[in-house]
Amino acid sequence: MEGRGATRIMIGVNESTIRGYPHASISSRGAFEWVLNKIVRSNTSGFDLLFLHVQVPDEDGFDDMDSIYASPEDFKSIKHRDKLRGLHLLEYFVNRCHEVGVACQAWIKKGDPKEVICHEVKRVQPDLLVLGCRGLGPFQRVFVGTVSEFCQKHAECPVVTIKRSAEETPQDPVDD
Amino acid sequence: MEGRGATRIMIGVNESTIRGYPHASISSRGAFEWVLNKIVRSNTSGFDLLFLHVQVPDEDGFDDMDSIYASPEDFKSIKHRDKLRGLHLLEYFVNRCHEVGVACQAWIKKGDPKEVICHEVKRVQPDLLVLGCRGLGPFQRVFVGTVSEFCQKHAECPVVTIKRSAEETPQDPVDD
Repeated sequence: MEGRGATRIMIGVNESTIRGYPHASISSRGAFEWVLNKIVRSNTSGFDLLFLHVQVPDEDGFDDMDSIYASPEDFKSIKHRDKLRGLHLLEYFVNRCHEVGVACQAWIKKGDPKEVICHEVKRVQPDLLVLGCRGLGPFQRVFVGTVSEFCQKHAECPVVTIKRSAEETPQDPVDD
Repeated sequence: MEGRGATRIMIGVNESTIRGYPHASISSRGAFEWVLNKIVRSNTSGFDLLFLHVQVPDEDGFDDMDSIYASPEDFKSIKHRDKLRGLHLLEYFVNRCHEVGVACQAWIKKGDPKEVICHEVKRVQPDLLVLGCRGLGPFQRVFVGTVSEFCQKHAECPVVTIKRSAEETPQDPVDD
């Protein structure tokens, strides 16, 4: 059953809301470890992991409140800093893959995560999309919205959602 | 990464609505082949496949219109026949697993498929539940209801739904 090309698994990853860059979120790490432990197992040559990080454009500019913009160069430095953040995040996953010996690719896109993920699935055509999720109850979900629910419905490939385990859930379950 | 026990994948299977027993439905076969080709691959010792077939009690008794019931024995023979049907279905999947060399178990339950599947997930605790689905549009779905949507929400393990490919869809997409 080998030889038909590796199974390509896309994993959507994002940063922690509680520990700040460059830490991967609890649910991203959970999704990744689930793929390694339950799917890839010892068959490292049979899989190719594709990490997609979607950066959300900073709507209210809160992060940049203390910055002073005096020249076009100042804006370039922001873009550079955002890029660095995303790169640190991806570095974590690429390093782990390298340790384990599984092939991987990782890239960053900007936009609305749910739409960008579905667009990238269409473009890249993975065999499986794996997303971590916080496992929020229906009440919390109304206010937060979930990327995974949208992708379950709209992504053009099979999708599996890995919920955080109860012992890994922070005090405020909206954090990750 | 091996040695922690095989990854246990539960696959919900049902019979074809167009070809009759003992033929597996298009979507069941699709889900099974996806698991073999994309997940198990050459690592047959790393996985244990668990086939669950839920038999729906015949609500309107249409299948039994031509039967005459004269003694308790007549009812026993119906139950026996139903059981045989389910066994033929499971035999298909167990035979394929045997050919490929992957460990498996298969069993039959009676009831509402979506509820029985979620109950069996709770009892058996697989690492992943795989369901085939017909890939109906929203209009068709309203009338048919989908087991996979229910299980995505309520099953206590990760769930992946494998849609039939377009070329395998029968003329009436509600058939399977």
